Amino acid sequence: MSKFAQRMTTMEKSATVIRNLFSTMNDPEIISFGGGAPAKEALPIDLVREITNEVMRTDKRGVEALQYGSVMGLPDLREVIVNDLLLPKGVKGNVDNVLITNGGLEPMNLVCQLYIDPGDVILVESPTFVQAVEIFEMFQARCIAVEMDDNGMIPEDLEAKIIKYKPKMVYVIPTFQNPTGRTLSLDRRQKIAELGSEYDVIILEDDPYRDIRYSGRDLLPIKAFDETGHTILANSFSKIFSPGSRLGYILASDEVTAKLFDAKTATNSHTSTLSQIICAEFFKRGYYPAHHKKICDLYRERRDVMIECIDKFFPKETKRIFPDGGLFTWAELPGGINTTELLVESTMNPDVKVSYVAGEGFFTEEGGMGRNCMRISFGGVTPEKIRIGAEKLGNLICTKVK
Amino acid sequence: MSKFAQRMTTMEKSATVIRNLFSTMNDPEIISFGGGAPAKEALPIDLVREITNEVMRTDKRGVEALQYGSVMGLPDLREVIVNDLLLPKGVKGNVDNVLITNGGLEPMNLVCQLYIDPGDVILVESPTFVQAVEIFEMFQARCIAVEMDDNGMIPEDLEAKIIKYKPKMVYVIPTFQNPTGRTLSLDRRQKIAELGSEYDVIILEDDPYRDIRYSGRDLLPIKAFDETGHTILANSFSKIFSPGSRLGYILASDEVTAKLFDAKTATNSHTSTLSQIICAEFFKRGYYPAHHKKICDLYRERRDVMIECIDKFFPKETKRIFPDGGLFTWAELPGGINTTELLVESTMNPDVKVSYVAGEGFFTEEGGMGRNCMRISFGGVTPEKIRIGAEKLGNLICTKVK
Repeated sequence: MSKFAQRMTTMEKSATVIRNLFSTMNDPEIISFGGGAPAKEALPIDLVREITNEVMRTDKRGVEALQYGSVMGLPDLREVIVNDLLLPKGVKGNVDNVLITNGGLEPMNLVCQLYIDPGDVILVESPTFVQAVEIFEMFQARCIAVEMDDNGMIPEDLEAKIIKYKPKMVYVIPTFQNPTGRTLSLDRRQKIAELGSEYDVIILEDDPYRDIRYSGRDLLPIKAFDETGHTILANSFSKIFSPGSRLGYILASDEVTAKLFDAKTATNSHTSTLSQIICAEFFKRGYYPAHHKKICDLYRERRDVMIECIDKFFPKETKRIFPDGGLFTWAELPGGINTTELLVESTMNPDVKVSYVAGEGFFTEEGGMGRNCMRISFGGVTPEKIRIGAEKLGNLICTKVK
Repeated sequence: MSKFAQRMTTMEKSATVIRNLFSTMNDPEIISFGGGAPAKEALPIDLVREITNEVMRTDKRGVEALQYGSVMGLPDLREVIVNDLLLPKGVKGNVDNVLITNGGLEPMNLVCQLYIDPGDVILVESPTFVQAVEIFEMFQARCIAVEMDDNGMIPEDLEAKIIKYKPKMVYVIPTFQNPTGRTLSLDRRQKIAELGSEYDVIILEDDPYRDIRYSGRDLLPIKAFDETGHTILANSFSKIFSPGSRLGYILASDEVTAKLFDAKTATNSHTSTLSQIICAEFFKRGYYPAHHKKICDLYRERRDVMIECIDKFFPKETKRIFPDGGLFTWAELPGGINTTELLVESTMNPDVKVSYVAGEGFFTEEGGMGRNCMRISFGGVTPEKIRIGAEKLGNLICTKVK
């Protein structure tokens, strides 16, 4: 049979991690701390029904919803992004600089279309979001890890690696980072924007969890410090509205936006107009503030329960992150426990049946980094099940500590 | 500023054609024979409202619609494709071999992800769909044109060019081809499938107009003759259901499907679940046959009026295609008329104000091919406006014939 392109080989490693992730996700008997999906209680089902019912009653909106739409996206939704989501967070943007994408991952694909030739270096956090790495590897980029601490990517290491590797791009998830839940500090945000400008490197800021903050204070995005257009901001409606409607967006400079138009056209023409109309109406009708409060309350409770249970049932030497938002935390286990091996037991053992994501898949560097770590999602699990699952998982871990 | 990737340069020519296309499309004073959009009367607005209203009443379907979905697509919709759209056309397919895409163009992007390394050759029809060419050029493929006649791509020329250029892929639009409206004959369909198998070349069969046939007899797709898995079938719901919901699909072999899973994951995770549920319900509730009859009646009338007007008002030496389906026809004008230059006059002259797509943008080869040709869409224009617009355009053309 015809040979596959080179990129299908370079992406094989991360693709395997992701395929394995999906495979354990749908067993209904398992309490899953694995997936990154929002709570089903956080999905605005009734509001979507109401909006659709009204929107499709007028011929004009009905045609708009079902006919071909604009490559850049529905103007209404781009206005919502600029006025309701960016401005209140300190980011000034123009509607013409916003492109609507099919979900929150497509921005990474489109920005790679614009910038990545085979062999180009992308600097990523250590650890980082494996699905983004899969995209980077599909574009045959070389991912180089930058050190992190509890305040996020370390600028000194970033600058050293910019000088050493001359990367095309830096990929950062600044807020409630995937997989660690860590948040990049304000001064580092400014510093990273400045490094992008100084060394002529694209800073791809992927910030899908930012709006799910339920404690602590909002921080300005990296994009707010960008004075040269080197920072490209990507975000998603998956956590604040609905993942199934597949809506995300990119904010970029004029020059970059013009090229994104071409890349989006040559990817899938435009994003579902029906989804865009419903989402835009959700904001324009003023439903977002109450919905946002509701889901933040929901996730705050789940975070508190999860952290309480980890502190209670996991070995006392466990290091865990206390996230001020988002859907997961990250735990570093003591005693040389291999979380990849443990996952087999925790999902198969009929007395446990709990899943999580093993840490090592999130590291791009060689050498077994993160083998004693796990990403633990609490967003999609009820407090009752968090208590049951975390106790079982904690007890299993305790039996393994040497 | 950071340098763009090489692919952004290789796609520049076709991207410019497409940007120009979009720019003339939205002037409400112009009678547009330019766009390829379906008629607004062909959009099932009321049915979509009814379906959404009912689907979102149950929590289970509501969660399904708004939560993350499967990479491959909604099982219900994949069943509809296999049972309602493929089987009746003579194509046996398994649900597991169907991937749902974000619209009808994304299949070309995903198949290129799988197969195209920079410099690979893709054989295309002469002329062919410029938006597909833009994708091929984004993947830095070299497009080589294969000769056509009124029965579609000529297999003898195809075989000669397979031998000469050793292409990775052949791109064919077999039914009511874009831009010509021509249909590939049955014996050629079989021959092209066989050439793919014999020479180990992927045949990418893009068949979005097939289901809009309103005269003549259905022909088996190329995929029906494929015995080795070399043919990949792409199709779209844009013409039979709604373009704005962005739904298309790929039918491929097991081996190819497994790789498509990775490419789709690394493009945008999955297609809008809400769109998929509504579309699946549209078929499962039995609405399609009556809707299909309605839109075929609508388009048949428009084709008949357009052909009648071309025959009446265009210069008598004009060669035009009589399509048995689809949304447009193709005209070759006499007298050395340059349709690119004419378009400026036909859209700007206040006594004309009619647009179409100039022919030359559809040809990948050099040398001014198609400069006297035009693609004329009738699908989205009412019969009354077709009469007015075609008469004005025909009269303008007649003043130019030397």
